[in-house]
Amino acid sequence: MPIYRAPLRDFQFLTDEFLNVAQYKDVPGVGDVDTETVNAIWAEGARFCEEVLLPINQVGDKEGCTFKDGTVTLPTGFKEAYETYVQSGWTSFVCDPAYGGQGMPEWTNMPVTEMICSANLSFGLTPGLTHGAYNAIFLHGTDELKPRYLPKMTSGEWSGVMDLTEPHAGTDLGMIRTKAEPAENGTYKITGTKIFISAGEQNVTENIIHLVLAKLPGAPAGTKGISLFLVPKFLVNDDGSLGARNAVTCGSIEHKMGIHASPTCVINLDGATGYLLGEMNKGMKAMFTMMNAARIYVGVQGLGLGEVAYQNGAAYAKERLQMRAPTGAKFPEKPADPIIVHPDVRRMLLTMRAFAEGGRALVMEIALKLDLSHKHPDAKEREAADDFVQLMTPIVKSYLTDGGFENANLAVQVYGGHGYIAEHGIEQFVRDARIAQIYEGTNGIQALDLIGRKIPMGTGKYLRQVFYPMDAFMEQQKNNEAMKEFVKPLGKHITYLQQASLWLGAAGVSNPDDAAGGATEYARMFAMVYVGFLWARMAALALAKLEAGTDEKDFYEAKLETARFYIQRILPQSVGILATITNGAKSIMGMKAESF
Amino acid sequence: MPIYRAPLRDFQFLTDEFLNVAQYKDVPGVGDVDTETVNAIWAEGARFCEEVLLPINQVGDKEGCTFKDGTVTLPTGFKEAYETYVQSGWTSFVCDPAYGGQGMPEWTNMPVTEMICSANLSFGLTPGLTHGAYNAIFLHGTDELKPRYLPKMTSGEWSGVMDLTEPHAGTDLGMIRTKAEPAENGTYKITGTKIFISAGEQNVTENIIHLVLAKLPGAPAGTKGISLFLVPKFLVNDDGSLGARNAVTCGSIEHKMGIHASPTCVINLDGATGYLLGEMNKGMKAMFTMMNAARIYVGVQGLGLGEVAYQNGAAYAKERLQMRAPTGAKFPEKPADPIIVHPDVRRMLLTMRAFAEGGRALVMEIALKLDLSHKHPDAKEREAADDFVQLMTPIVKSYLTDGGFENANLAVQVYGGHGYIAEHGIEQFVRDARIAQIYEGTNGIQALDLIGRKIPMGTGKYLRQVFYPMDAFMEQQKNNEAMKEFVKPLGKHITYLQQASLWLGAAGVSNPDDAAGGATEYARMFAMVYVGFLWARMAALALAKLEAGTDEKDFYEAKLETARFYIQRILPQSVGILATITNGAKSIMGMKAESF
Repeated sequence: MPIYRAPLRDFQFLTDEFLNVAQYKDVPGVGDVDTETVNAIWAEGARFCEEVLLPINQVGDKEGCTFKDGTVTLPTGFKEAYETYVQSGWTSFVCDPAYGGQGMPEWTNMPVTEMICSANLSFGLTPGLTHGAYNAIFLHGTDELKPRYLPKMTSGEWSGVMDLTEPHAGTDLGMIRTKAEPAENGTYKITGTKIFISAGEQNVTENIIHLVLAKLPGAPAGTKGISLFLVPKFLVNDDGSLGARNAVTCGSIEHKMGIHASPTCVINLDGATGYLLGEMNKGMKAMFTMMNAARIYVGVQGLGLGEVAYQNGAAYAKERLQMRAPTGAKFPEKPADPIIVHPDVRRMLLTMRAFAEGGRALVMEIALKLDLSHKHPDAKEREAADDFVQLMTPIVKSYLTDGGFENANLAVQVYGGHGYIAEHGIEQFVRDARIAQIYEGTNGIQALDLIGRKIPMGTGKYLRQVFYPMDAFMEQQKNNEAMKEFVKPLGKHITYLQQASLWLGAAGVSNPDDAAGGATEYARMFAMVYVGFLWARMAALALAKLEAGTDEKDFYEAKLETARFYIQRILPQSVGILATITNGAKSIMGMKAESF
Repeated sequence: MPIYRAPLRDFQFLTDEFLNVAQYKDVPGVGDVDTETVNAIWAEGARFCEEVLLPINQVGDKEGCTFKDGTVTLPTGFKEAYETYVQSGWTSFVCDPAYGGQGMPEWTNMPVTEMICSANLSFGLTPGLTHGAYNAIFLHGTDELKPRYLPKMTSGEWSGVMDLTEPHAGTDLGMIRTKAEPAENGTYKITGTKIFISAGEQNVTENIIHLVLAKLPGAPAGTKGISLFLVPKFLVNDDGSLGARNAVTCGSIEHKMGIHASPTCVINLDGATGYLLGEMNKGMKAMFTMMNAARIYVGVQGLGLGEVAYQNGAAYAKERLQMRAPTGAKFPEKPADPIIVHPDVRRMLLTMRAFAEGGRALVMEIALKLDLSHKHPDAKEREAADDFVQLMTPIVKSYLTDGGFENANLAVQVYGGHGYIAEHGIEQFVRDARIAQIYEGTNGIQALDLIGRKIPMGTGKYLRQVFYPMDAFMEQQKNNEAMKEFVKPLGKHITYLQQASLWLGAAGVSNPDDAAGGATEYARMFAMVYVGFLWARMAALALAKLEAGTDEKDFYEAKLETARFYIQRILPQSVGILATITNGAKSIMGMKAESF
């Protein structure tokens, strides 16, 4: 069975030193939380993930979900684990106190989310999606809907899901056919078929709140004619008790590559009663409230799987004896050396580690910015933080899910043939990680969002939230001899990124195909350079700590070595990507469609 | 269900134009075969793959193999398909006429192998492994063993398998514990446990010939003390009939990520009767006869999956309607454009196509060289061809299996959410392709073979088989205006490859870790540049044809467009890899093992 130990020390490093959350102690709901309490909470979360969720992860994969007569049963142990989860208060963690929540900031929640994704991705989807639906109702629900639905979602008694996709409309939601007809008392009758609805039906919560995209009669064509509706599985009486079963039912569940313990449902709406959420025909906007948060959450899924994959690869490499080191036997008393002596195995492990720790820094940073964008008293600060979040959301989603999948595959490679065998649980990480590159907008769509909307915004207004801090850091470090090995190469690659940004910006105007054709490569390069910047910042902190003296020398030295690896062996790839991007899309568009 | 159409036109292009096999018409058993007959044979093979193997591929994945009381039953339809395969004479195709074979060259067989891998990878493993075992017996068997075993393996009535791996010894075969004790009549009693034995037990052939690595009493430690034994499932009487059941049995089969229709067996040898194959303690050498051929074969598995993945991705992209092209609607009469109008989708499809067609050129070239290395009347020509095969075998294995996996994942990405659903059969390609990066020596081991043995050999003797033809081609094309767009970037990247080769060569002497640390990147760069060279050669042929006039304009234009894409959008990555390699392995070796 795979192992997992929550990276608690790294969470502390990131919050105490890297983010220096204490600097926001005057921002209510962001920096005014007691760090000791937070650490205790994380330790509690770690215990739950290690002891409750991890042991049922392989069970869930093997058993999968059962569909019978419209009901869906999760695998053995999942209902009990969910009950423990609810009883421990995790569902209310970041919810608003007005509805029974604990009002904790996002940055305290990300580690919990990551740990759940590491231990049991399938388990996490039900509460994860509920959180997104909660936010959409919180922001767009009427004063009547909010007190009726939010407290039970906060408590975890009810869950929330997103019903967007239809068989012919996935990326292109403008094409949906689900209809909403006005009915009595301002309600609507919703009719249509939705597919790929994660956790759309299950046996662990009393009620399931579907947020459904549908079209009103006479609505404009395309995305401008879409509205968002709240459609509960059970109607809710005025006193808050459950009423009649609504006409929203599960038609079947999919057999899929991975996340077997999370039911992916076909949902049939047969004149189901729904309540408008937000304005008529403005459903896409309301949906993006969920979607943006969901995209960051999906990125964290990649991170979580990347972390657990790394841990298992490293543990196996230290234990598996095979061959001798290229420079001669390191453990002559053993029949062979542990494979961690081999440079190619270390290359794989360090790639995984640099991804996991660099990705975690990225997640913690966007989490803090998310908090600041909502809660900072200064509107300018809120706006700056929001600009960062807007820009980096597609990066977080695509970089972390691609990296999570790569890490899972590297773990299989470190394990060799044993990695391919189901029993060891490593290949499950590959199958589970694969979906994250697809759902909540494929990574190609994220790249288009980056180059088509986020980069051009306000002639580079969002971009400044990245390039200005980079410049400031380079300036600040320019006389730091010890940092030269990081700062010099980073500076070069920042220049490359700026060149690519300018080239794509110009191409976006003169030939949209050139921009769209380079979007995926650009997103990859952007992430690669930005994470290089994060590593350089972490290296500076580690160097300072080691210079000042610390009794955790191993921790800071490992940080420094991983930073070196990233700068020397990951970052250089960006120059090849720049060359690819600036070759333009002529060779992409040249071939006739019939010739494919 | 996935589609598949055998790329017969491309096979013809490669043999008639790219390899120009006719130039070897005076080399018996290589160029003296009738091309019309060969084309007819391929068309017959195509029909078998499309109509018999493809339809049972998903069935095989879903059902898997059944293990009961020591017997293994393949999924529905596999026994019948194997019988058809045998009756059609495919098993005898390249075998020696002295043992009932048809004596066809390898280059005529590669397309058949590729088609089988595209249509049904699991099915192909039994005959594929038999071919490797046949070769080992053919080259190392005594005059008594050969007529006893080879005719029935040629006819396909018996199969052959490799029993190498043990629980604690995969890459490191020197550590095996299976023992061989001398017994009566020059036979041996073999005792031990082998794992991961593909097709080690099944219900489709009368007998299974295990080639088993074991240690004789008092044999030297490590790989120098390993011998190879022939261990039949049923002993064979002097008249060729089947005798007693030998003590070689299947203990269980593995549950694994993919290739579900190919049983992966634990094989128990309990004093089984075995016959020495080749010399005592020289088993590794004999085994490499199988292994080198098997590595090329595994590369073809990646190619075959890469091709079928491409075809399905392309078909879906032409049919799925979603969003509008960045430059405006291309099919305004439809509710949306087919996704093939999107540059990012085309990027994925062209990446897949450039891999499949470039990889096929590589496979056909190594196949022809393999034939020449055995059959050319001139010893120097044989040696030169063998040098090429030696050098390129690890490249063929690692590049094609990495690319096959990448193609399978790109097909899933093109399909979006539908690619993740089992029913469409696309995610199966990912799961099936994953093993090819691992077995027959992980791709990391291939890279070490390349830099540790193949590159240094005879101070670059093997390398000359690659760099001399590159130089000759560049010289030949230097005044060809139309070829400038290919030759100029290619020349630059050849220089980079030479720089990387020199750097690693020097590092290999001064610091083995630097060489081993860069091995995987170097293998990737080597393949990338070499395939660029193949694409430039194919582009030159296509240009000449288009200039001369052809009624297959679409075929040659598509070839040219794909070449452009490869040169402009794949090849540039090599410069980033060069930078990575020359940064050395210090950052790989720095971290303490305990810190991982």
